[in-house]
Amino acid sequence: MKNFLPVLAFSLLTISCANTDITHKKNNLTVTEQASALSGSLSNSLPKNIIMVIGDGMGPAYTTAYRYFSDNPNTEVVEETVFDRHLIGLSSTYPASVSGVVTDSAASATALAAGVKSYNGAIGVDVNKNKVQTVLEWAKLQGKKTGIVVTSQINHATPAAYLAHNESRKNYNAIADSYIDDGIKADIYLGGGWKYFIREDRNLVDEFKQSGFHYLDNYQGLAKLPNNKPVLGLFADVGLPWALDDTNKHRLSTMTKSAVHHLVDLQSTDNVADEGFFMLIEASQIDWAGHGNDISDAMAEMDDLAKTLEYLEHFVEHHPDTLVIVTADHSTGGFTLAAKGKYEWHAESLRTMKHSVNYIAKQLVANEISADYAKTLFNFKLNQKELSLLIKTKKTPKLENSKNIYQDKKTSVTELALLMNVKHIMDNRTNSGWTTGGHTAIDVPVFAFGKQSELFNGAQDNTDIAKKIFTLLGK
Amino acid sequence: MKNFLPVLAFSLLTISCANTDITHKKNNLTVTEQASALSGSLSNSLPKNIIMVIGDGMGPAYTTAYRYFSDNPNTEVVEETVFDRHLIGLSSTYPASVSGVVTDSAASATALAAGVKSYNGAIGVDVNKNKVQTVLEWAKLQGKKTGIVVTSQINHATPAAYLAHNESRKNYNAIADSYIDDGIKADIYLGGGWKYFIREDRNLVDEFKQSGFHYLDNYQGLAKLPNNKPVLGLFADVGLPWALDDTNKHRLSTMTKSAVHHLVDLQSTDNVADEGFFMLIEASQIDWAGHGNDISDAMAEMDDLAKTLEYLEHFVEHHPDTLVIVTADHSTGGFTLAAKGKYEWHAESLRTMKHSVNYIAKQLVANEISADYAKTLFNFKLNQKELSLLIKTKKTPKLENSKNIYQDKKTSVTELALLMNVKHIMDNRTNSGWTTGGHTAIDVPVFAFGKQSELFNGAQDNTDIAKKIFTLLGK
Repeated sequence: MKNFLPVLAFSLLTISCANTDITHKKNNLTVTEQASALSGSLSNSLPKNIIMVIGDGMGPAYTTAYRYFSDNPNTEVVEETVFDRHLIGLSSTYPASVSGVVTDSAASATALAAGVKSYNGAIGVDVNKNKVQTVLEWAKLQGKKTGIVVTSQINHATPAAYLAHNESRKNYNAIADSYIDDGIKADIYLGGGWKYFIREDRNLVDEFKQSGFHYLDNYQGLAKLPNNKPVLGLFADVGLPWALDDTNKHRLSTMTKSAVHHLVDLQSTDNVADEGFFMLIEASQIDWAGHGNDISDAMAEMDDLAKTLEYLEHFVEHHPDTLVIVTADHSTGGFTLAAKGKYEWHAESLRTMKHSVNYIAKQLVANEISADYAKTLFNFKLNQKELSLLIKTKKTPKLENSKNIYQDKKTSVTELALLMNVKHIMDNRTNSGWTTGGHTAIDVPVFAFGKQSELFNGAQDNTDIAKKIFTLLGK
Repeated sequence: MKNFLPVLAFSLLTISCANTDITHKKNNLTVTEQASALSGSLSNSLPKNIIMVIGDGMGPAYTTAYRYFSDNPNTEVVEETVFDRHLIGLSSTYPASVSGVVTDSAASATALAAGVKSYNGAIGVDVNKNKVQTVLEWAKLQGKKTGIVVTSQINHATPAAYLAHNESRKNYNAIADSYIDDGIKADIYLGGGWKYFIREDRNLVDEFKQSGFHYLDNYQGLAKLPNNKPVLGLFADVGLPWALDDTNKHRLSTMTKSAVHHLVDLQSTDNVADEGFFMLIEASQIDWAGHGNDISDAMAEMDDLAKTLEYLEHFVEHHPDTLVIVTADHSTGGFTLAAKGKYEWHAESLRTMKHSVNYIAKQLVANEISADYAKTLFNFKLNQKELSLLIKTKKTPKLENSKNIYQDKKTSVTELALLMNVKHIMDNRTNSGWTTGGHTAIDVPVFAFGKQSELFNGAQDNTDIAKKIFTLLGK
């Protein structure tokens, strides 16, 4: 936190520090300044609506790459992205010391949701497995509407860390069950998850309906949500299809618009005071592309997130009492823009992709590989070397040096080998580098706009983000 | 640039925009606000001293890693670094479009020095090879004292881009010659470079002396610089020794202290108005460690830079009319904190290193490799596997997969193979990843403190940094 912020912002944070142990920042306010802030109207300075947006796995290489991906090649300048407009700092992401310095999504989401460092795998619990209150839970208690919108299943690590408390992210069914059993905490849930919510042993969708929820299972339904009922929208068995393969390539953006409108509608139709809302939005699959060392899907997921943020810019313009904070939980894949000694990174081939690399690999297994057919899949003409590589791979598939540790075990070796080489082609064309199928510890960018967004300026820890949100929620 | 800055800072920048084409920032000030700033006393708002610090190759992975490297393992908290205290944004680094999106140090230093995008290799010239004025040259014209302090040779790409104009960074002798022939532009030069400044065809050191310069060729001399003469200090044939091998492991910090004191002294002894100073400081060898994919030297060079910044914090505390800006020209090596699917990065072995990996490799060639001897070199006990690797490498040296494209061609295969495996041991122990022996295009962190440092908040391009400095220098 730098000493250029308005006094009120400082004071808010300083008041918060006493309760929440933000000890490593140096905000030396005079007693007079603190008193002055206290005597002012604190509630007027708090944002009515808070929207937390997480790009899962979106380290600084992803937001940089997205600038060159979305650049208009017909102009000399490099166009500014929505990320450039709102960048205000970086966040450290390390988990509790028991897990070293490289976090997983569960520990980092727990830090972002509750302001507490925990072990990798922890969902809304501390290192001693005690429940920790989350900003979403606190917001609900303050009378705010709440919502979550994700492209993963809605009980995946990040949303779960805001909504549930479990010693392990892997307990998907138990986490889903807790969404009912621990009391319903959100007014709208949009994402994937039929597998966990409609099970043989328990049908949670029916239970949500019995609790008064409107349920939908297709994107079309998003256009006509009932304005007086809470909503559960599940659109896939687990996570949503890749952006590139989905019927709506900007499904996060579409879901976000519906959810924001719905929360505003619910506020206005309720017979209670309008306390605003808290939302969590996650572009979950940037991370999944990173795990797969898959640059084309990573950029398509980034594009869906960028469109979402552009919509939120518009919303904040019309609702200036709203705060939007955007960050990542960690970076994934050790992605770098350049590799192998070459001073190059090229986005051209990525810009026209129409299918995920997984879809392309599946089609290459099922169909004869010709230059023309490959062109329909990639949407650009493969060179002879690339084409030969795919044909040879299909004839004699080999799996060497595959760094993709998240690969579905049921997939055939032929498909895996083709997938690896489709990604190899994209890496060669772009000159992308990767060092891991897992996460890295690099600091992640923080973006914010809207009311009190200056509170998030500079360097901070992921736990500070939750602590500041708690403060802005009046805790 | 965010809209939370003091009006004056905004206005300064907006005034500047008309001249310097900062078009992609959205500072919509009212005419009243602009007029108000104009009618105020502009000169009072300008910093007297400006210190530009470049960590060559220091992308966000380096500043993150330095936090975990410098962390005190005996405390539960992760200690804040000097970088954390002053982080205020990120900068894009892409060169002119003719060179793609991955910059070299010459193009990036030209952008940082002159505010102009150029081609890779360009030293203070634009894409048409026309000279472009640098902030150092402009500062000199305004009557400010000027200085450069680097750990490379003083005619290396980064300092050269502030002091010279040449179509290629490779023209080392011509660049050195221009330091005299184009007029002497700095009052103090500290770094390496005997090879270029004391040549058979020309002795530039003598020429500097004839121009009234005090010359020194050892660090001891830094303690007693004459307070009424400009200074040339060259301490090595090319770049300085690695921090880990140098007689002074914090030689950048030591040189910086002397140079700052000297510039202050010169101001007070001169019979002219005290106009302050402009300095360029470069931690040049972070980049060289990055090119070598050498994590232990990278962290030692970062430590020297951190100590330098801690000194500058102290200076600014006592000279609040000083602005310090710190950034990188690009990131090097595709360095990542974690690799190969493991969620780990370990700094322990790095913290006790006493020699560079190059020194260790040379000693392993010259001496019999035993467990005890290896321990004296690494300053930790190698495990059996590590020791066997080194013994086997010396017996049957092989060079496979060496990504180090900057390697000295005169070095023996045995030494190169040992060097590669010494670095392999350090990568394995730390779980560091690398994707290239060159640069990457990731955005780099920006840090600033002191007077008007808030001007550098948020996302910006490297050319914006020069444009803002020009503004702060009254251009």
